[in-house]
Amino acid sequence: MVMDEIIILANGDFPSHPTPLGLLRSGLRIVCCDGAAQRLISSGIVPAVIIGDMDSLDPGLQDIYSERIIRVSSQETNDLTKAFTHSLTLQPSKIYIMGATGYREDHTLGNISLLSQYKENTLTEIEMITNTGKFIPINKTHTFHVPAGSRVSVFSLDSDVKINSLGLQYPLDEVIFDSWWKATLNVTVKNHFTLNFREGRVIVYIAF
Amino acid sequence: MVMDEIIILANGDFPSHPTPLGLLRSGLRIVCCDGAAQRLISSGIVPAVIIGDMDSLDPGLQDIYSERIIRVSSQETNDLTKAFTHSLTLQPSKIYIMGATGYREDHTLGNISLLSQYKENTLTEIEMITNTGKFIPINKTHTFHVPAGSRVSVFSLDSDVKINSLGLQYPLDEVIFDSWWKATLNVTVKNHFTLNFREGRVIVYIAF
Repeated sequence: MVMDEIIILANGDFPSHPTPLGLLRSGLRIVCCDGAAQRLISSGIVPAVIIGDMDSLDPGLQDIYSERIIRVSSQETNDLTKAFTHSLTLQPSKIYIMGATGYREDHTLGNISLLSQYKENTLTEIEMITNTGKFIPINKTHTFHVPAGSRVSVFSLDSDVKINSLGLQYPLDEVIFDSWWKATLNVTVKNHFTLNFREGRVIVYIAF
Repeated sequence: MVMDEIIILANGDFPSHPTPLGLLRSGLRIVCCDGAAQRLISSGIVPAVIIGDMDSLDPGLQDIYSERIIRVSSQETNDLTKAFTHSLTLQPSKIYIMGATGYREDHTLGNISLLSQYKENTLTEIEMITNTGKFIPINKTHTFHVPAGSRVSVFSLDSDVKINSLGLQYPLDEVIFDSWWKATLNVTVKNHFTLNFREGRVIVYIAF
């Protein structure tokens, strides 16, 4: 952990797993969507920034935290994207996204897929941490360092991407990404694994 | 509700919303994945069938319900697919799937996409009910009857499908399904809406 890393807290399920909860309490700057601010503040953590149209934030809290509030009322992008766009201006080395899953499943699906869009425009590392694991968007060959026996699923928004995997129990060489389940429920056999591909919008899930 | 409808209960989050919970208690036959059987039985509901490799079912319960148990130990398909394949042999008019989301998000994604695969091989209606709404797979033009103001998201496993929508606040005419968020967070403006398309693997989410 380095201090120029940033956490975005979105309006889905508040973190309950020790890993995201520990990170939330680690002192990193938190850019908080307005819908999640009340809960964060109630838990004793003060966000660096509260961003959104403020419709869902208690006026009393708006007064107290007025200097940390950024009003953005565009209907063109969702709250997570507003928070992400602002976070990039802070030039962090890494952005952790929390609270972006667990409420309506259509929001969950949409938010996970947005990771690839975010990754297209930045070199900043991006990691979405849920209560069960993490999603990491990559767009070219990448090596992950995780313990042997880690449970891994790979998703692609591009059905024609051809991935050659190293270090996974079920090699991905033959996988055609024509359904979301096609490269799920894999297991790592070493303390690292590599997904080899030239280009594509790939999202990797690693369970805790 | 007709009595030849069937419920499949999978191993994800046990239903907590009144809609799936009410349906679970309605007396319909329940085909239960073994990992979910203990919880179902504890809640006072007896499944018609318990299906799986029985690794996760208490031996005492296996004795009591031995006549309802179907052992299937294939590693080729997941528990939900085993339950679905068996349910089809019972020739139901409709299959409700519950408990298929809410644990690991990679399972959730995979299970939602399996709906399209299930729909390819049957005329039986299929509906996955979560604690926030329902997912319905369709493969051609379909009209849904829901109250005006319903919140709707549309997903497609085929990125080239072109859908013409009627009755949605944001028409889908221009949508290219190149990311999962592309046709999410719509709203119905009448008491029915129609998705017009010739062929494709489309999954519709309707929030409660």
